Amino acid sequence: MKHSFITTKTDSHFPIQNLPYGIFQIKGQSPRVGTAIGDYVLDLSVIDKAGLLDGTGAEAKNIFSATSLNRFMALRRPVWSAVRSKLQYLLDADTPDIRDNSALRSKGFHLMEDVEMLLPAEIGDYTDFYASKEHATNVGIMFRGKENALMPNWTHLPVGYHGRASSVVISGTDIHRPQGQMKPVDVSLPVFGPCLQLDFELEMGWFIGPGNEMGQPVSIKNAEDQIFGLVLVNDWSARDIQAWEYQPLGPFLAKNFATSISPWVVPLDALEPFRTAGPKQDPAPLPYLQTTKASAFDINLEVSLQGEGMAVPHRITISNFRYLYWSMAQQIAHHTVGGCNLRPGDLLASGTISGPEKESRGSLLELTWRGTEPIHMENEEKRVWLEDGDQLTITGWCQGEGYRVGFGEVTSRVLPVEHHHQTKQLIHPYIKK
Amino acid sequence: MKHSFITTKTDSHFPIQNLPYGIFQIKGQSPRVGTAIGDYVLDLSVIDKAGLLDGTGAEAKNIFSATSLNRFMALRRPVWSAVRSKLQYLLDADTPDIRDNSALRSKGFHLMEDVEMLLPAEIGDYTDFYASKEHATNVGIMFRGKENALMPNWTHLPVGYHGRASSVVISGTDIHRPQGQMKPVDVSLPVFGPCLQLDFELEMGWFIGPGNEMGQPVSIKNAEDQIFGLVLVNDWSARDIQAWEYQPLGPFLAKNFATSISPWVVPLDALEPFRTAGPKQDPAPLPYLQTTKASAFDINLEVSLQGEGMAVPHRITISNFRYLYWSMAQQIAHHTVGGCNLRPGDLLASGTISGPEKESRGSLLELTWRGTEPIHMENEEKRVWLEDGDQLTITGWCQGEGYRVGFGEVTSRVLPVEHHHQTKQLIHPYIKK
Repeated sequence: MKHSFITTKTDSHFPIQNLPYGIFQIKGQSPRVGTAIGDYVLDLSVIDKAGLLDGTGAEAKNIFSATSLNRFMALRRPVWSAVRSKLQYLLDADTPDIRDNSALRSKGFHLMEDVEMLLPAEIGDYTDFYASKEHATNVGIMFRGKENALMPNWTHLPVGYHGRASSVVISGTDIHRPQGQMKPVDVSLPVFGPCLQLDFELEMGWFIGPGNEMGQPVSIKNAEDQIFGLVLVNDWSARDIQAWEYQPLGPFLAKNFATSISPWVVPLDALEPFRTAGPKQDPAPLPYLQTTKASAFDINLEVSLQGEGMAVPHRITISNFRYLYWSMAQQIAHHTVGGCNLRPGDLLASGTISGPEKESRGSLLELTWRGTEPIHMENEEKRVWLEDGDQLTITGWCQGEGYRVGFGEVTSRVLPVEHHHQTKQLIHPYIKK
Repeated sequence: MKHSFITTKTDSHFPIQNLPYGIFQIKGQSPRVGTAIGDYVLDLSVIDKAGLLDGTGAEAKNIFSATSLNRFMALRRPVWSAVRSKLQYLLDADTPDIRDNSALRSKGFHLMEDVEMLLPAEIGDYTDFYASKEHATNVGIMFRGKENALMPNWTHLPVGYHGRASSVVISGTDIHRPQGQMKPVDVSLPVFGPCLQLDFELEMGWFIGPGNEMGQPVSIKNAEDQIFGLVLVNDWSARDIQAWEYQPLGPFLAKNFATSISPWVVPLDALEPFRTAGPKQDPAPLPYLQTTKASAFDINLEVSLQGEGMAVPHRITISNFRYLYWSMAQQIAHHTVGGCNLRPGDLLASGTISGPEKESRGSLLELTWRGTEPIHMENEEKRVWLEDGDQLTITGWCQGEGYRVGFGEVTSRVLPVEHHHQTKQLIHPYIKK
């Protein structure tokens, strides 16, 4: 097994087997591209300037001194793989180039805790899918009953919709509870006020690499070449706003106030050892969605919640990325089959990932069965929806033999409605019965 | 009435009363910002370099030598108004600065037919609304019957959804017929093939100026200060793909293959003489959507269609922007009320604009009543949906006394399915009855 001269514990998310990319900033300096190794960030612009990335095809192009990964993403897989191989070589315990160069080491390495992580890409478009059969079934049962749980289209195509790119934010950004219009069942007219059914959604997302021209679909065979890497995603949702607004054109304000992502983009190459078969698809999809290649990935996912009155976070969900019915490759092939173009830096996300067990449900909507079964946590705290002050954290990792390839975490705190819009209490001011 | 030394006919779309902004390119040169006057484009980077925009607040900032209007849009209304006043002064028949400077004239003016128009902005996010009551009612009757035509939420909020920014293209870009998955009523399983119900949608769009911070809603009172200017929009739609995919998350592939816009962005200031009251709103909207200001604009809209076998275009729709039930200001206030941030260059569109008359319907879906009442044109041509080779053109203008403030046009031709994906004929290859 590979080892780095930067030693890492066996449960570190960032051993030499991972090497994710991110945009980091040291106070007062311009943001640039780094990779994570153990507790450190390695500044790739320093490594590039030292000539150590020569021959990869990405060298000396200001790719690594850029303030986003878009230009690196726009290159193709052979270049990504060459950079990754070179970095694994340079960080290897047996390679002296950086290990024995103290000037380079002190210039290139920063403790993670000393840097700020920024959004990894300028996201042109953000698309969210609905690819978990368990999630779609749970939601369907709640809203339409057991007989009509899945819409007729669901097993034939990966249902998706366009989300809001402007409000995708990096882990650590606190989220204000949104206000909006909703219609409680017991009143005849809609009301305006703070969302009372604030929820998270456990998702994963992937950044698009080279992209495709308009009118030139990406075949399922080539779809994975579009995947630069993956992140954790929390697609915040306002369930009461959503229930009132979503027909017939889908969710809008219920989702566009915020979407949080983790900062480190884990390359698809780092996930290869964890490739596995996804769920059997029955009925067989149409030919443009068919592949014999194993297209799922075994990524452990956990969600934890910590209320203001709680000493430690409480784990509320244990799930896995491989539960997804529709693969990333299928989602990309479907997205582009009508000619829609993807661009470098576009973000596609899976939709809520729920598994077959009750504890593997990826949203409070499902965990509390639309608010009817509260979650009980320590200190007699319980939840049906998110409360102000709650810290919601998603983490994920692949378990190798003696090492992990991890995603770090995406974490955010729920703040009250912004003060200057805040109504005096959590009441609905315009209720007319 | 103001006159320019560039003479214009009374039906010109671009007299001195208009002065829209666009991005133009002369072959071999870098794109830059221009305004339209009569049959000419005036290069504003030339005017700026000559010092003629000094004092406007936009001068000498490379605003007009930029390849998009985003940086100009990011400035605020006082600067936009100052630039507009200065241009109206400089182009006035009585102002000698440009009129009598032959070097400046020959450097600054280009015949419209000699330049290529490009997308006016880098569009971060594109949002489409559903703001015409007549359109929503027509569609509702067709899909759900007369009693349940409008969804309960429709009269309480401007329904909207996020569209695809990457596939917004400029007028003149031909559009390939998309392929996709659909389920004809007479078969039990979905099929894949070319869209057989290709449609246009008559819309108008507006570009966002300064934008707002996440979590900081734009009040209805300040909403119009976010509107830099307006364009014509054709939101191409694949009705058969839409019918099968849209539940429960809204349209996706049915819309994201292309959206066409006109190249000249008409400033809101140019539309002020045509401001008028919109339709009476009953029930009264919630307070965050209430305004006493007249918020509609009297903009004549026409759609024409020319098949390959037709000598001239046939006008199929006569409508007006003022028919819209929800105003632009209401759409902006609603969009941001939950905290969603808008950014300079974001595009918001109205959704299909249909009027009260049969001939004022803004889509073939409505004009042919879901394909049951063909449109009859000259040469015995008729249409239920768009055919390959059809040229679809939307135009629009405000009628002043002796002048027009016009939008030019958005025009595109329908091309067959891209060759390398094309099935041999317009058949569905995977039909299983």
